Amino acid sequence: MTADEHLEAREAVSLDELEALLRIPSISALPEHDEDVRRAAEWVADRLRVAGMDFARVVPTGGHPVVYAEWLHRAEGPTILIYGHLDVQPVDPINLWDSSPFEPEVRDDRMYARGASDMKGNLLECILGVEALLRTEGSLPVNLKFLIEGQEEIGSPQLPEFVAMNQKLLACDLVVSADGGQWSEEQPQITLGLRGLAGLQIDVYGPATDLHSGIYGGTVANPIHALAYILDSMRTEDGRITVDGFHDGVKPVSDEERAAIARVPFDNPEYAHAVGVEQLYGEEGYTPLERVWVRPTLEVNGIWGGFQGEGSKTVLPSEAHAKITCRLVPDQDPARILEVIAAHVEQHTPSGIRAETRPLPGSGAAYLIPHDHWGNRAAADVLSELYGVQPYLTRSGGTVPVCAIFQRELDAFTVSFGFGLDDERIHAPNEFLRLRSFRRGQIGWVRLLRRLGQEPTPDRRRGVSSLDTDTRAAL
Amino acid sequence: MTADEHLEAREAVSLDELEALLRIPSISALPEHDEDVRRAAEWVADRLRVAGMDFARVVPTGGHPVVYAEWLHRAEGPTILIYGHLDVQPVDPINLWDSSPFEPEVRDDRMYARGASDMKGNLLECILGVEALLRTEGSLPVNLKFLIEGQEEIGSPQLPEFVAMNQKLLACDLVVSADGGQWSEEQPQITLGLRGLAGLQIDVYGPATDLHSGIYGGTVANPIHALAYILDSMRTEDGRITVDGFHDGVKPVSDEERAAIARVPFDNPEYAHAVGVEQLYGEEGYTPLERVWVRPTLEVNGIWGGFQGEGSKTVLPSEAHAKITCRLVPDQDPARILEVIAAHVEQHTPSGIRAETRPLPGSGAAYLIPHDHWGNRAAADVLSELYGVQPYLTRSGGTVPVCAIFQRELDAFTVSFGFGLDDERIHAPNEFLRLRSFRRGQIGWVRLLRRLGQEPTPDRRRGVSSLDTDTRAAL
Repeated sequence: MTADEHLEAREAVSLDELEALLRIPSISALPEHDEDVRRAAEWVADRLRVAGMDFARVVPTGGHPVVYAEWLHRAEGPTILIYGHLDVQPVDPINLWDSSPFEPEVRDDRMYARGASDMKGNLLECILGVEALLRTEGSLPVNLKFLIEGQEEIGSPQLPEFVAMNQKLLACDLVVSADGGQWSEEQPQITLGLRGLAGLQIDVYGPATDLHSGIYGGTVANPIHALAYILDSMRTEDGRITVDGFHDGVKPVSDEERAAIARVPFDNPEYAHAVGVEQLYGEEGYTPLERVWVRPTLEVNGIWGGFQGEGSKTVLPSEAHAKITCRLVPDQDPARILEVIAAHVEQHTPSGIRAETRPLPGSGAAYLIPHDHWGNRAAADVLSELYGVQPYLTRSGGTVPVCAIFQRELDAFTVSFGFGLDDERIHAPNEFLRLRSFRRGQIGWVRLLRRLGQEPTPDRRRGVSSLDTDTRAAL
Repeated sequence: MTADEHLEAREAVSLDELEALLRIPSISALPEHDEDVRRAAEWVADRLRVAGMDFARVVPTGGHPVVYAEWLHRAEGPTILIYGHLDVQPVDPINLWDSSPFEPEVRDDRMYARGASDMKGNLLECILGVEALLRTEGSLPVNLKFLIEGQEEIGSPQLPEFVAMNQKLLACDLVVSADGGQWSEEQPQITLGLRGLAGLQIDVYGPATDLHSGIYGGTVANPIHALAYILDSMRTEDGRITVDGFHDGVKPVSDEERAAIARVPFDNPEYAHAVGVEQLYGEEGYTPLERVWVRPTLEVNGIWGGFQGEGSKTVLPSEAHAKITCRLVPDQDPARILEVIAAHVEQHTPSGIRAETRPLPGSGAAYLIPHDHWGNRAAADVLSELYGVQPYLTRSGGTVPVCAIFQRELDAFTVSFGFGLDDERIHAPNEFLRLRSFRRGQIGWVRLLRRLGQEPTPDRRRGVSSLDTDTRAAL
C-alpha cells in the first residue's frame, strides 16, 4: 500500500479525528479555556505518538504549553522543524454562527467549526501525511521535529523565550510552517514575505481638567488639535510616511520583485468594491499589491478624547489619545521605528501641550525568504504537481513574528506550507475548511517530505546531533 | 423706613426664603425633576405677587414653563424687562458634595446649595429689591416686567419661540439680566459682550467595515488620518482659523476696545497655573483677554474612532468622528459659519473617504452692547457707589444666546447685573453664594431701579402700551 492509498483508505477515520480535535474549545484568549488548550495539546501529543513519532511531549511554558515531538533516524538528509498551533480564536458573536462552533458539522463538503481552517485542519493534514509515510515505508525521508504552540492567537507571548532557551532542541535546517494558505482552490502560492509590526500609543495632555470652551477657548492649547497636528505631520496625503529616519535602511523595491508581484493578478475595482470604498489609496509610485506587500505603513488604529456623547458639550478637553501600528519591511527594526516615531512626536508637540509615547505589545520584525531557497523550490515543485499550475510568488501584509524569531534564534528560514483559503472566515463566525483541501493537504505533506528528503544534505548538519538524553530530560 | 432699612430688617426672613427656593431641586435636564421645575416657577410667581407685582403667572411653553410678571404704573420713565432663570444644573458627582445639594447650609457666611450662585440668589436679590421699593415707597421708579425661564441650563430650547411669539407682551426699553457676576469681591464689572456659538459634527467614513491593517494597510484610506488632516487644515499652529470665509465681516479690534481690555488686569503665569498648563497659547497679535473676548475660536470638543481599549488592535477603522464648536464675534452669523466649515470639510476630504457634517444644537449669535449705553451708565454708577471703585469693562468668552434673541425680537439691549463670582463652583459640587453678595445685591437692585428711573423717558415708549387684557388673556 502506498502512502496515498493509506490516506484514502482511512479517510472516514481521519475526518472523525478532525472532528474530535475541533470539539476541544482551545481558546487561548479566555482563561476559562486554559484547561481546554492543555487538553488539545495532550490530544496532539498523543496523535503524534500514534503517528509514529518516537518522542512527543506536552511542554509547559510560562503561558499555554507547547507540544514538542521528534523522529531523527535519518543519518543523511536535512532536519525539518514543523511549526503550527493548536489554539483557536474566541467565537463571538456567537449568535451569527449557523451551527455551534465546537460541534463540527459537514455541509457541502465543508467542515464548519471554529479552528477548522485556522489551523486544526492544516495541523492534522501534516500529522496524517507523516503517519502515512511511517506506516507504509517504515521511516521518514527527513529528520523531523514538531513545535506546536498553544498561544498563537494571543500573539505567542512566551514563544520567543521558549525558542531562545531551547536552541539545541529545536535546531534544524529548515522550518516549515503548516499555518499557511493558498491563493485559491485552483492556484497555489509560495509566500515569500511578511511585514513586521511596531505599535505605540500617543497620550497628549493639555489643561489639568476639561475647560469651558467659551471662557478659555483661544488661550489654552487644545490637545485634540495638537494630536491632529502630530498625526497629520506623520504622513503625506497619499500615505507616504514623513517621520525622520523611518525609511532608514529600507531598500528600494527591485525590478525583479516588482516583476514577480506584477505576475500576481489584482483587480483594482473588485478589491475596492470588496472593502466598500469608491477608490483605492496609497503611496504614489507603487501598485496596490506593492503597497501591502513590500512598503511599510503607519496607521492610526484608534483615537479618542473629549466629549463623545449625543449633542454638544462645549469643552476644551484635558487630554487626547491615539494608538498607532506600523507594518514594517525587511531592514526595519521595530524598536528603532518606535524610537524615531517618539522623537517625531516630541519634535511636533505644540507649545502648551505635553505628549508621551509608549510602546504597545505585539511588535515583530518583517520576514523575507529568497524565492529560490531550496525549501521554496521543494514546496513549489510539490504545489505545481498538486495543482497543475506554477504557484504565484506572494507576500502577506500581515505579521507572523515567529518566522523572524526562528531566523534569529535557529538561523533557519521558514517555508509556509498550508491549505487554508482567504474566504474561510477565520477569526469570524461560520469558519469552515474545504474537505477537498483537507485531502489535498495530506497528500501534499507526503510529497513535500519526500521532496525535501531528495535535497542534498545541507553543509551544516543540524538537529540530529542534539538528540541526547540530557536535552530531552530538560523538558 | 427706607428701602435699605426694610431689607436689613427682614434679613433673616430673606435668608429663610432663599433656603426655601434652594430646597426645590429644579433640575431642568432631568425629566424626573420636571415637576420640581414647575414648583419652583409657582414659588417665584407667588413671591413676585407677594412683592407687589400686580400680575404674575406661570406660563407654559413646549418645554419647561416661564414666569411672567409686570408692574406698569409709571406714565413716564422707561420699561425694564428683568431676565433670569429658576432652573439649576444636575448635581453629579454627588459624592463630592460636603453637604446635600438641596439642603442649603450656611458655613462661613456662605450659603452652600445647588443653584445658590447660579442663580437663585441673584433672582431673589432682585425680587427683594423690587419689594423693598414697593413696600416703602408704594411704587417703582420704572415700569417693570419679569421674564424668568425654567430651561436656561439646557440651552433654552423653547425661549426663542416664546419671545418671538410674545413681542408685544415683552416689549421694553431695556433688558436687565440678573444672571451675571462681578469681577471679584472688591471689583465690579460691566460685561459688554458675549461670544456666539456654532457647532457641528464631522462624520468621516472609509471602508465598509474595520479592516485588518496588515492585509489592507497601504491601499485603503484611513478615516482617522483623513479626519486629522481635515481638522489640522482648519487652524494654523497658533490657532488662527484658516477656513475660507470664516472671518468674513469680522471687524478688526479697535484701538479703543484694546485699550479698554488692557485696563483689565491679567496675570499670565497665574492664569496658566490655574488651568494647569506650562504656557498659554493663542493667535499671534492678540493678548490672552483679546483672544477670549473679541476673537473667534474653533475648538474640537471631542473625537473618536477605531479601537480605544487596552493594548493593541491592528485595525484600519471604518469611521471616525469629531465634534466642533466655534465661539463667534459680532458680525459672524452662526448659520453662515456652519456653511463655510461644511464647505471646507468637503474641499479637504481626501480621495477614498466620504465626509459628512451636521449642525449641533445650541447655536447663537454674539452679543455686544456699547459701553456708554444708558443702561450701562446707570449700572456703572450704581456699582461704583456700591464697591467704591469704577467697574472694569469686560466681556465673556462664553455664549448667552438670549441676549441676541432679545436684541433681534424686542430690539432691546441687555445690561448684565448680577453678583455671582467666578470661584463659586457653579455647575460643580459645593456650589455656594457669598451672603455678603446676597445682601449687596438687594441694595444694588434698589439703586439700579432708582437710577434707571432718572433716565429721560426714551424716545420710543414701549411696553406700557402693551398692557391690555387681550395680551394677558392670551397667556
